[in-house]
Amino acid sequence: MRLRGRKGIREALETQAELIVLNPAAYKGKWKDVFGNYRPIHVELGMGKGRFISQLSSLNPEINYIGVDMYDELLRRAGEKAVQSREENGGTLANLRLALFNIEKIGDMFETDELERIYLNFSDPWPKKRHARRRLTYSAFVRKYIDILNDNGEIHFKTDSRSLFEFSLNSLADMGLRMRNISLDLHADGPRTDLVMTEYETKFYEQGMNIYRLEAVIGQAALERHLLSLERDIQENGE
Amino acid sequence: MRLRGRKGIREALETQAELIVLNPAAYKGKWKDVFGNYRPIHVELGMGKGRFISQLSSLNPEINYIGVDMYDELLRRAGEKAVQSREENGGTLANLRLALFNIEKIGDMFETDELERIYLNFSDPWPKKRHARRRLTYSAFVRKYIDILNDNGEIHFKTDSRSLFEFSLNSLADMGLRMRNISLDLHADGPRTDLVMTEYETKFYEQGMNIYRLEAVIGQAALERHLLSLERDIQENGE
Repeated sequence: MRLRGRKGIREALETQAELIVLNPAAYKGKWKDVFGNYRPIHVELGMGKGRFISQLSSLNPEINYIGVDMYDELLRRAGEKAVQSREENGGTLANLRLALFNIEKIGDMFETDELERIYLNFSDPWPKKRHARRRLTYSAFVRKYIDILNDNGEIHFKTDSRSLFEFSLNSLADMGLRMRNISLDLHADGPRTDLVMTEYETKFYEQGMNIYRLEAVIGQAALERHLLSLERDIQENGE
Repeated sequence: MRLRGRKGIREALETQAELIVLNPAAYKGKWKDVFGNYRPIHVELGMGKGRFISQLSSLNPEINYIGVDMYDELLRRAGEKAVQSREENGGTLANLRLALFNIEKIGDMFETDELERIYLNFSDPWPKKRHARRRLTYSAFVRKYIDILNDNGEIHFKTDSRSLFEFSLNSLADMGLRMRNISLDLHADGPRTDLVMTEYETKFYEQGMNIYRLEAVIGQAALERHLLSLERDIQENGE
């Protein structure tokens, strides 16, 4: 595959303004206007080449989906995949947006309570201890998720990394989130295609590797903990 | 090893009345009298041959320990081990009791709030779905644990069975318990001797097998859930 130059990619992305959002922070608190309706919004943080979000948005027209990643080239490929899958299977792209954004600043892209679900699929495990803060289930990230998810919000997390899964179980529990549907070998009884498999996942599954999965629910405990930590921040900042 | 006849074993156990308790239900609510003090009580459900509880009680004289199992022969061996380890390492047996009891009736052995900690080590995984109710982390068991543990109570759970661990994570989370120190490969960085290894565990570790571990805390959420389920029971029984 020949990679186009960076400038060429950006120009290509700009021609798909109805699907690809290059300045998503401009829509913070206004995503319902972007989609033109009040349907729940589900976001995949780190969509990669976009197969998961493309399939999911095709299966569930009553949900609005936003795939987020920070590389032009991934957005281009995800965009191509989405268009192609709609041409093959029908359906519109009205409920899908692909956003170019750095997940570290996710709080600049969404307003408090704006989302109903966050998907984290095969995030970088950052295995070295000194890189723990970069893991997408590190407490500082989870705090942001709790803020932008509504009271019925959920985090759906999948990984092939045992160490990242272990870390995430502890991190999510520490933040007061309630977990459910925890799986230490997701495809033990055959592939769980009902959950839509990512590119990575299909490859790992074929190699006989183990996939871990969980759902974490924003419950009362998480909200209380979140409020406490906000209060503490306010006190520490003398305001 | 020559196994003595059942009658012979029972007679041997009866001679060790200060260590071995053959009628533990008689002491429900009175274990502080048995030990002669108000120190916290930690219980191992399914102590097997008793190495874990024997070592732990030797290490922590300020805690009272009760090992529970339902077979005379296991009690005999655990008793021997305890006596032998004290002869070798010094210390008294004053803070240890070994009780002959069926864990299914654990609510008949302890009063509400009587315990501070429950250890479940390498419990039978009962891998078949139709036997799920026999797993020691099945909801009906956990409900009993929540009752007999006090507000600071904890459940410490170890297993080599991935399927039992997965089941237990979900079951404990469903019951509203908060988990912490979750480990999917306990001895990844060398043997965690600080946690005291059981007979099984040492063997499994030497075979390179994976050990799973977690701690579950009786928090507010678990208590509320417990009260709700009690209320429901009362309503259903029309009283």
